[in-house]
Amino acid sequence: MLFDTVWLNARLATLAEGREGLGIIEGGAVGAKDGRIAYVGPQEALPSPWDAVRTIDCTGRWITPGLIDCHTHLVYGGNRAHEFEMRLAGASYEEIARAGGGILSTVRATRTATEEELIALALPRLDHLLAEGVTTVEVKSGYGLDLETELRMLRAARRLESVRPVSVSTTFLGAHALPPEADGDKDRFIDRICDELLPTVAREGLADAVDGFCEGIAFTPDQIERMFVAAKSANLPVKLHADQLSNLHGARLAAEHGALSADHLEYTDEEGAAAMARSGTVAVLLPGAFYMLREKQMPPVELFRAHGTRMALATDCNPGTSPLTSLLLTMNMGATLFRLTVDECIAAVTREAARALGRLQDIGTLEPGKWCDLAVWDIERPAELVYRIGFNPLHSRVWRGQ
Amino acid sequence: MLFDTVWLNARLATLAEGREGLGIIEGGAVGAKDGRIAYVGPQEALPSPWDAVRTIDCTGRWITPGLIDCHTHLVYGGNRAHEFEMRLAGASYEEIARAGGGILSTVRATRTATEEELIALALPRLDHLLAEGVTTVEVKSGYGLDLETELRMLRAARRLESVRPVSVSTTFLGAHALPPEADGDKDRFIDRICDELLPTVAREGLADAVDGFCEGIAFTPDQIERMFVAAKSANLPVKLHADQLSNLHGARLAAEHGALSADHLEYTDEEGAAAMARSGTVAVLLPGAFYMLREKQMPPVELFRAHGTRMALATDCNPGTSPLTSLLLTMNMGATLFRLTVDECIAAVTREAARALGRLQDIGTLEPGKWCDLAVWDIERPAELVYRIGFNPLHSRVWRGQ
Ligand SMILES: [Zn+2]
Ligand SMILES: [Zn+2]
Repeated sequence: MLFDTVWLNARLATLAEGREGLGIIEGGAVGAKDGRIAYVGPQEALPSPWDAVRTIDCTGRWITPGLIDCHTHLVYGGNRAHEFEMRLAGASYEEIARAGGGILSTVRATRTATEEELIALALPRLDHLLAEGVTTVEVKSGYGLDLETELRMLRAARRLESVRPVSVSTTFLGAHALPPEADGDKDRFIDRICDELLPTVAREGLADAVDGFCEGIAFTPDQIERMFVAAKSANLPVKLHADQLSNLHGARLAAEHGALSADHLEYTDEEGAAAMARSGTVAVLLPGAFYMLREKQMPPVELFRAHGTRMALATDCNPGTSPLTSLLLTMNMGATLFRLTVDECIAAVTREAARALGRLQDIGTLEPGKWCDLAVWDIERPAELVYRIGFNPLHSRVWRGQ
Repeated sequence: MLFDTVWLNARLATLAEGREGLGIIEGGAVGAKDGRIAYVGPQEALPSPWDAVRTIDCTGRWITPGLIDCHTHLVYGGNRAHEFEMRLAGASYEEIARAGGGILSTVRATRTATEEELIALALPRLDHLLAEGVTTVEVKSGYGLDLETELRMLRAARRLESVRPVSVSTTFLGAHALPPEADGDKDRFIDRICDELLPTVAREGLADAVDGFCEGIAFTPDQIERMFVAAKSANLPVKLHADQLSNLHGARLAAEHGALSADHLEYTDEEGAAAMARSGTVAVLLPGAFYMLREKQMPPVELFRAHGTRMALATDCNPGTSPLTSLLLTMNMGATLFRLTVDECIAAVTREAARALGRLQDIGTLEPGKWCDLAVWDIERPAELVYRIGFNPLHSRVWRGQ
């Protein structure tokens, strides 16, 4: 067999389903052909005879699937450092709002940014993720809240793929917040999403999924459900920001609509956890927002385990509640704050994150036929990826075989 | 005036005392001569005529003093990722101890490491700090707990200065834990520290200060006090790990002995805070350990403010309770977890960290005569250094004018 590239002398955490724990293979090799994994397994079992255009000796380093950040708001205008500073100095939410802070300040800054500017602003954030071995990133819209800006955000997100070696999944998050021009009428805004924004986004092929924010301060379960129905008509899978600050049974709602994922989930109850397990809806936990908001209510990790609900972790990178651009630190937070085990944390940013994006057939594990997206690490054991805080042991990163 | 290097067109956060807030100078310039700051101020007020061997246009970037990590255990053998993994998987402290975990596992690994090995192991950690603009780092001994290994740790720490452009302050931390061969006799071990270890360390000029761990699980105030007296005889300033898990009045004890700093301080009371203010003892807060141990009791920041106790922040980089190598993340934790303001966080890793090391006359602010240690940042406002999580906007780093 002739490979384009072969990585030899590696320790593999394949994350393959059906294998125990991380699916470890000592003395392993990976062979890539046309950007995909053509062989993964023990080096001694490489199909004989084999040859390769390029052979890389990993000298015992670990290889995991390339990391996947499955929940980000990476594309936006402005930044909210000043608001953060004001809050620490004792300013009230009202004073911050009067000073032009809050989510609507990001909406304003995003609406006035060009597509080129949105890309330029997102790149340093994206580059920090890539420097830690990320090969796929999800990006949501939701700071436009009007047709033109939502489309521009999604186009900017898509175009990140053309300027960096990374796969981007885009998500239309029209139901993120109510824009000022909606005059407080949430139902009418949901109508607009269902009748105009979502169909246009779908027609232009700009979104891989549809998302909403179900919460007292955002949209009701009924409003979200109307949007889910519209998404189904447009043939787009759904996901949901659910049960972050209170239990509106968003997890159950998402599961009932076969959502790819429900995200945050601090207040999800057993019924919600069980419904997610049944529907295969992934629980995407976002410890960065939990940390930044100094929340006390932990997501029900024990219930997810008991019911077999899959768990992913993501940065939730956004300017208001999680200005976080490190997926390694997110793994540490998942362990430290949410008590996930090391194996759960590593699966949460590879296999389960791929599942949360509906892309498990293509990425997320080291298995033949999948894209050859790899992260090569200077570590002695996988636990080091989770244990260390503010450190980056990435040796090299491979996207589609390169 | 002829400078070696001049940085022009910069925004300066000088941190100079007597100036308000961060001591900001817009349109600023810094001139270096023989490694020291020869001019700092408005660019238009540069002494005329001036010339420079090298002129650097900062194009509006911000310059702060080089960052100072004033409390680390950077030099050690082994790592404790496996112990972290076991704990998350539900192992008890007893099971971990039986499996060879805990601080004594680091002592074992450090005792068997050569000086060269200790340096090689410390360098990746040090390099991560330097990549974020750190120009001075404190390093403690305390994983040897015998004469030979304590000396070797301190020599390794000193030698970091010869392999990287960084200033190192060394601290002898003999009273860190009781070694296994001490057979539970803490008093006799303190005797050995006072009679043999500390005098030898002092005679060989290997330590800039002496530190101890005052806690139920470590040493009593009486034992620490005996060591402080021995340090005084050896003409070495003292500092103390104090009031981290309970209030043994360690902060007050440190203040009474004129300590440079007392560190951790979660359980310090008003009397302790007031005593520290009177003696000029800096409160070194260590949010990394607080985060990792999931503590609930916050250090009394309001009391420190009320009494005028100075506050520094440090990584406490160590393999057991704070495997943290990011001073930027430490600043974010200081704000997020301890509610320090942005200005307090920035002062805490520059001016106040210098004060905690007794080196304020030489580093920690941008003032004429001090070492020209600078961090140049790609940011719009200083708050961004604190606000972002897992990001590094360092543009360049200058140590002693280079
Ligand atoms: Zn989100
Ligand atoms: Zn310490």
